[in-house]
Amino acid sequence: MPADALVIGIDLGGTKITTGLVECSGRLLARDYRETLAVHGPEAVIARMLDAVHTVLAQAGIGKEQVAALGVGSPGPLDIGAGVVVSPPNLPGWERVPLRQRLQDALGIPTFLENDANAAALGEYRFGAGQGCQHMVYVTASTGIGGGLILNGALYHGASDLAGEIGHMTILAGGPLCGCGNRGCLEALASGTAIARRARESVARGVPTRIADLAEGQPERISARLVAQAAAEGDAEAQAILAEAMNYLGIGMANLANLFNPQRIVIGGGLTNLGEALFEPVRRAIVRHAFRSAAEAVRVIPAGLGENVGVLGAAAVALAAVG
Amino acid sequence: MPADALVIGIDLGGTKITTGLVECSGRLLARDYRETLAVHGPEAVIARMLDAVHTVLAQAGIGKEQVAALGVGSPGPLDIGAGVVVSPPNLPGWERVPLRQRLQDALGIPTFLENDANAAALGEYRFGAGQGCQHMVYVTASTGIGGGLILNGALYHGASDLAGEIGHMTILAGGPLCGCGNRGCLEALASGTAIARRARESVARGVPTRIADLAEGQPERISARLVAQAAAEGDAEAQAILAEAMNYLGIGMANLANLFNPQRIVIGGGLTNLGEALFEPVRRAIVRHAFRSAAEAVRVIPAGLGENVGVLGAAAVALAAVG
Repeated sequence: MPADALVIGIDLGGTKITTGLVECSGRLLARDYRETLAVHGPEAVIARMLDAVHTVLAQAGIGKEQVAALGVGSPGPLDIGAGVVVSPPNLPGWERVPLRQRLQDALGIPTFLENDANAAALGEYRFGAGQGCQHMVYVTASTGIGGGLILNGALYHGASDLAGEIGHMTILAGGPLCGCGNRGCLEALASGTAIARRARESVARGVPTRIADLAEGQPERISARLVAQAAAEGDAEAQAILAEAMNYLGIGMANLANLFNPQRIVIGGGLTNLGEALFEPVRRAIVRHAFRSAAEAVRVIPAGLGENVGVLGAAAVALAAVG
Repeated sequence: MPADALVIGIDLGGTKITTGLVECSGRLLARDYRETLAVHGPEAVIARMLDAVHTVLAQAGIGKEQVAALGVGSPGPLDIGAGVVVSPPNLPGWERVPLRQRLQDALGIPTFLENDANAAALGEYRFGAGQGCQHMVYVTASTGIGGGLILNGALYHGASDLAGEIGHMTILAGGPLCGCGNRGCLEALASGTAIARRARESVARGVPTRIADLAEGQPERISARLVAQAAAEGDAEAQAILAEAMNYLGIGMANLANLFNPQRIVIGGGLTNLGEALFEPVRRAIVRHAFRSAAEAVRVIPAGLGENVGVLGAAAVALAAVG
């Protein structure tokens, strides 16, 4: 593919659609940002995606025949081979929608579909914190914990496009109940949701903590962000809750170091706003819980693409498919 | 490679060396079995390996020029790219021994080195229970728990040849101490060693159990095999210990199903002598702890090569390298 080839990436989320016209280098030439309005159903959402594509083309003064490929990052589950969105919880009414074919037929641009976490992994690998390595685990640590696997320089999908369910690795058998129905998942111990739950438990038990003041007596206001704020203000309970969660995150990352022996673990998502309060305990836990040589082989670093990870990830899917 | 090509596989272990002359199909034409006598040091062991190669060639009346490649499965850690045995705990005196080059120079046959668990995984994939799939996790459940990963039809090594340390995945944070120094590893909960330790604890606590009778008052006699015997005789405590261990093994396998989304998990090693007392709880735990679609994608089956897994695995390493 020529170095000046262009692709379009669409990051389809439950609340917003971000669309970008992107050069091979990862430079965004034009971007469109709009609400998904998922409640209107798949036909309306597809129409909005098509309109967004025309918008970024018009912004840049580019004809669609100059676009080599279109990549879409979508919430899963997907049937990637068939290009079908199966039934994402946050896209109501989507039941086996052949999104790839629909967009390709409407636009005449070769189109490729990938789940959002995998697309983000590929984006970080191609344009962000994973550049230049061969084996990388991408972790998104936010209200949930997800991820994507770059093995031997390519996304690893597994038998049915489910590989990389990092958040639902059991690390404390019999531990707290997870949204998935299992107990002791990494997500149930180290996600934003888990941190907020632990903080609510402390407040309910009457533990003296700044968290209670910040929540102004309304437990539903307690979020990981609020716990982080209390910790930053010096609250010991908030600091202990975060330290415990980040230690569990580190145990999960140590498991990934032992299983995948990657060169990099790239962590993105809202929890990385904790900065060294996340990375320091995670790195320490890897040294303590993984094999020394696996720990020595891996660098644990923040994601590099920030808010553009979705759209650049979708563009990377397009580039990987045609490049 | 022609269908009648021949390779040699050597399974180098701490106590024995098994060497086979093997057809592409996996048929063993000749086999040599001898003690390693590792205490004599690397030079003596290499001489015994060379002698074993000449022995199998002579048995079959084959000249070494008819052999396409030699594969060696060795205890790790290895530097696979360099063909070097780094410093296996059970091969005393081996410190960065360039085994691949030494054998290749002496024999004039292209030689390839792989760690024993990976070689076994490749053997099962090529000749055994993994035939015909693309993504397979091989697990050896014995005194320890190890494994090898076949992803996209090939061994996955990771950044420094360490990938697949299945036994040292933490599944019960803060749990029992493992030989690796970590706590709550799969190996510390579900291996033969873990089963024997739990049984010794029960006997020491005075729990009435047939295990105590079978051990004749000597706790050091208690092994997983003895626990299995007590369980088979109907002893409730032995049955409970095995059930708990196999549930943990299943939780570990559920993690692998969620992370690798394989088509098959192939389990070999001494613990598989438990038969359905291993496979039934493991399959049940996967259904309970893994995502449904990951659980539906995977078959959990016994290894197929039995005692020949080491030598056929080493032969598969040779075939993969030249084929």
